[in-house]
Amino acid sequence: MNYYPESILKLIKSLSTLPGIGRKTAERLALHILHAPLHEAQSIASDILELKQKVRLCAKCFALSDKEYCRVCSNPNRDDSLICVVENPSDMAVIEKSGVFNGYYHILGGALSPIDGIGPDEIRLKELFIRASSKEVKEVIIATGTDVEGEATASYIADNLRFYDNIELSNKSKQNGLIISRIASGVPMGGDLQYVDQVTIQRAMEGRRGF
Amino acid sequence: MNYYPESILKLIKSLSTLPGIGRKTAERLALHILHAPLHEAQSIASDILELKQKVRLCAKCFALSDKEYCRVCSNPNRDDSLICVVENPSDMAVIEKSGVFNGYYHILGGALSPIDGIGPDEIRLKELFIRASSKEVKEVIIATGTDVEGEATASYIADNLRFYDNIELSNKSKQNGLIISRIASGVPMGGDLQYVDQVTIQRAMEGRRGF
Repeated sequence: MNYYPESILKLIKSLSTLPGIGRKTAERLALHILHAPLHEAQSIASDILELKQKVRLCAKCFALSDKEYCRVCSNPNRDDSLICVVENPSDMAVIEKSGVFNGYYHILGGALSPIDGIGPDEIRLKELFIRASSKEVKEVIIATGTDVEGEATASYIADNLRFYDNIELSNKSKQNGLIISRIASGVPMGGDLQYVDQVTIQRAMEGRRGF
Repeated sequence: MNYYPESILKLIKSLSTLPGIGRKTAERLALHILHAPLHEAQSIASDILELKQKVRLCAKCFALSDKEYCRVCSNPNRDDSLICVVENPSDMAVIEKSGVFNGYYHILGGALSPIDGIGPDEIRLKELFIRASSKEVKEVIIATGTDVEGEATASYIADNLRFYDNIELSNKSKQNGLIISRIASGVPMGGDLQYVDQVTIQRAMEGRRGF
């Protein structure tokens, strides 16, 4: 390994800490950066520092944001009767990319997982219940993962929202009860049934709809 | 694309300029950097800047170096009767990694390629001929690539070294004529003959040795 100068070795080492970047790829990237124009290399470095400095969590939905409120929360044209609950910012990105949802989000920052010491107080559930109890909110769509933790979190949220909603109903006389929904699970589009696991098939059968 | 804050989008964009890093990978890397400890992110950024600032070419062999002379050239324990000529610093790295060569290097910085406008003056041939004409040098091993450009460069070097060597011989009375050699080409080790191309087989037959 001592056939490169120190400063190249250092960059190779620090690039290797990135996910999916092994020694060989890090070496290739470092040599590319070495031969790239100075402004290109500088912009990568400054963008990394800027990212770490600027990005924080949206004060309302806890999405990633440069400002106090994220792009979605600072958009007044979205439907404030809908809250979509997701585990992580990247889940929110996937839903936004699809363009099918026009409400607001709530990012939990994880899922309940007692084995990892993540209980209801470790993720942003209280904040969700407070938001959901506001008068405008008509529906909470639970879009946590479909793994064990995601399912458990979904059940926990549904149970507690019903409880909160009952209290709120008696105090604030909401017109209708809060609708609590879960995103559908089933066979993915473009999927061949042959490759779909049994639990998914079971869900797809249970969730079947009239044609 | 507008579901991430500006500073994340900027980093994704600049990471996408790296070779082999597409949009998806850049997104994953940016999110990793976002969640990584501050010092890790800072060290990537500072290593990039340090690399661009410090790395230059060795004054003797034109390898990558932090100082005036590279690690190899500043090592007095190597055999100064051997010069190995390669196209690029990464070729030198491969030979160093193998550990079979104990002489010094000469990095041309490319290969002759008239179609791309790269003639003898565009690569460091003159510097090689000057180094090779020194009294200590007994053998020049030409390890340019085995593609058309690499082969042409090898022939050019061999022809010109012989010419220079004759002049030097008459002036400085070198003990023996300069040995000019070319790395062997043939079937790669661990290779199945079935998958080896015809030109390589031809070379392997021509270059056969007594057992």
